[in-house]
Amino acid sequence: MTIPDPIAPSRRVLMGPGPSDVDDAVLSAMARPTLGHLDPDFLVIMDEVRAMLRSVFRTENELTLPMSGTGSAGMETCVVNLVEPGNRVLVGVNGVFGTRMAEVARRAGAEVTEVQGEWGRAFTAEDFRKVAGGEKYDLVCVVHAETSTGVLQDIPPIREVADELGALLLVDCVTSLAGHAVEIDAWGVDAAYSGTQKCLSCPPGLSPVTFSARAADRIRNRTHKVQSWYLDLSLIQGYWGEERSYHHTAPINMLYGIHEALRLALVEGLDARFERHARNAKLLRDGLTELGLTVRVPESERLNPLTTVAIPEGVDDGKVRRFLLDEYGLEIGGGLGPMKGNTWRIGLMGAGSTRRNVALCLDGLRAALA
Amino acid sequence: MTIPDPIAPSRRVLMGPGPSDVDDAVLSAMARPTLGHLDPDFLVIMDEVRAMLRSVFRTENELTLPMSGTGSAGMETCVVNLVEPGNRVLVGVNGVFGTRMAEVARRAGAEVTEVQGEWGRAFTAEDFRKVAGGEKYDLVCVVHAETSTGVLQDIPPIREVADELGALLLVDCVTSLAGHAVEIDAWGVDAAYSGTQKCLSCPPGLSPVTFSARAADRIRNRTHKVQSWYLDLSLIQGYWGEERSYHHTAPINMLYGIHEALRLALVEGLDARFERHARNAKLLRDGLTELGLTVRVPESERLNPLTTVAIPEGVDDGKVRRFLLDEYGLEIGGGLGPMKGNTWRIGLMGAGSTRRNVALCLDGLRAALA
Repeated sequence: MTIPDPIAPSRRVLMGPGPSDVDDAVLSAMARPTLGHLDPDFLVIMDEVRAMLRSVFRTENELTLPMSGTGSAGMETCVVNLVEPGNRVLVGVNGVFGTRMAEVARRAGAEVTEVQGEWGRAFTAEDFRKVAGGEKYDLVCVVHAETSTGVLQDIPPIREVADELGALLLVDCVTSLAGHAVEIDAWGVDAAYSGTQKCLSCPPGLSPVTFSARAADRIRNRTHKVQSWYLDLSLIQGYWGEERSYHHTAPINMLYGIHEALRLALVEGLDARFERHARNAKLLRDGLTELGLTVRVPESERLNPLTTVAIPEGVDDGKVRRFLLDEYGLEIGGGLGPMKGNTWRIGLMGAGSTRRNVALCLDGLRAALA
Repeated sequence: MTIPDPIAPSRRVLMGPGPSDVDDAVLSAMARPTLGHLDPDFLVIMDEVRAMLRSVFRTENELTLPMSGTGSAGMETCVVNLVEPGNRVLVGVNGVFGTRMAEVARRAGAEVTEVQGEWGRAFTAEDFRKVAGGEKYDLVCVVHAETSTGVLQDIPPIREVADELGALLLVDCVTSLAGHAVEIDAWGVDAAYSGTQKCLSCPPGLSPVTFSARAADRIRNRTHKVQSWYLDLSLIQGYWGEERSYHHTAPINMLYGIHEALRLALVEGLDARFERHARNAKLLRDGLTELGLTVRVPESERLNPLTTVAIPEGVDDGKVRRFLLDEYGLEIGGGLGPMKGNTWRIGLMGAGSTRRNVALCLDGLRAALA
């Protein structure tokens, strides 16, 4: 075969649904020399990553670590470790990621009940209560930040319902962590997963997860083995815990990346970071409205890291996105599912949530739609 | 919390069972700007990675791609996609990784029969034939390069037995790919997985897999859904194939790394690379013997990328390895399972298979044992 040339990726401005722009300090960290996965210096890095993850999740949960896969691996980790065959699982489905959680739970042998919600709207507690009908459930699943629709879900009301049903609460925080307040302990969330390539602004490849003491208990007291060996937390804890026993070889350089990304988030300060995401999201929405575009999702349910906007009648989705990429080196996202072809998803996540990016995107859209 | 300082990992010489030393060109590639996972420039990189993987696996298999997890995720991918509940699976168990394959297959609902072999020895076809007893099997699994024992398994005889049993053949090539000849097509292997952190000398985080046309057929004709959504090839092919449909966000910068690592392997030339691994392994073994140490595994069954050596009576395993790390910045590996405490595993993999590393390791051991 002809051997390809070395890669030479352009420096894009990433304003899609993720990956987001990565700070140079994170990229440099990833290029540091690889250590062994049991090297004493690497064990220190692991411990620091766990401590910083707890800060970012705002939790004291002992069982908090980054899984060796992307966000969907984190989703599957939570589901397959918490669910045993025949368990009753109630899942809020108002976008791609709720749909996915329900599917993953069915594949884990759960008896799944879906709470169907409108795409582009959040759930009320009543939506869950009505479908549950007062029956007992083992697990309630909901998406905090629906990356497919741009909706932010209020979690405490869903926690209340889960309590009524005697269920643990699992929350998808992929697009909210480090961009919106995620309050694992204050909200009483039992399990949550996220990704690195959204508001943490680290390349994709790891999925932070966290489990409350009672979720960890449920895992400890399982009667069936976890169906996935690779994602089995009872084994993985042996490596991330005191024993340091070998399970699989950790993705060392990705962990360098998340270490630096978490550091940058904490140096900025989480509250300041949330405020920045809110400020720039508002600038973007105001600008889109000025351009005559319609921002989707009612104002009180909008996600700051990701804004969804209706594509005007007669405008060619692919052509506009290609124009932005070619002329501005700027990526925005298309829609998924029922929003395909009629919705753009514009991300302002982590290092990419800047006034400069807002200006660039608005100028690009103005030119594309002229 | 106190925010940790940025990481500052030392430049080790990695002569354990992996990760191995990573070429600076690979580390630099990983630090290039992140592209979107549907960016047209990234799609080119994906196609090049697949083409190069086919070259390195020596296969024309269409279904060849890197999975978004470490080597064990590749193992699980092969098993959960090929096995349906109740399938009969025959697994050669003569080390940690055969043991693991059997466990993963049981968790996938297979009826597993183990061919027990001595740790530190390869299998004969007769070993498999005897245990199989002429019954039909769906899948035969064997490890080409046992990372726990340093044994190289001859594959064609096992292929013959698999044919007799009407079974597909799955082979673990984690520690052999790009260090020993792996001949997927010539040997008639139906499925294989590897890792990036061994003879490809890329940091851990991806697992190359390949499937023959009939293995791909079996996946297409499954009657049960694959239990893992994250590892479901029928979905993942939608992203790596023509449709480019979203499944999960690919680990972009890890794929930059493997692109460069594959390039370097092909620029060197596979045969020259195998020859280099053989040459340096021989130098190491000769040197170890001169030091009065006993190299494990009969000569004809030895793995070139990984040499196992008996720890002399009365020598403290941990103390020696700590001395090498502190005084030489050199990592070698300890033993696993029944070899824990009595065996060292010394890797000469990929970029780390050099005459300089052999000399360094021998000098270090000489000093440690003096």
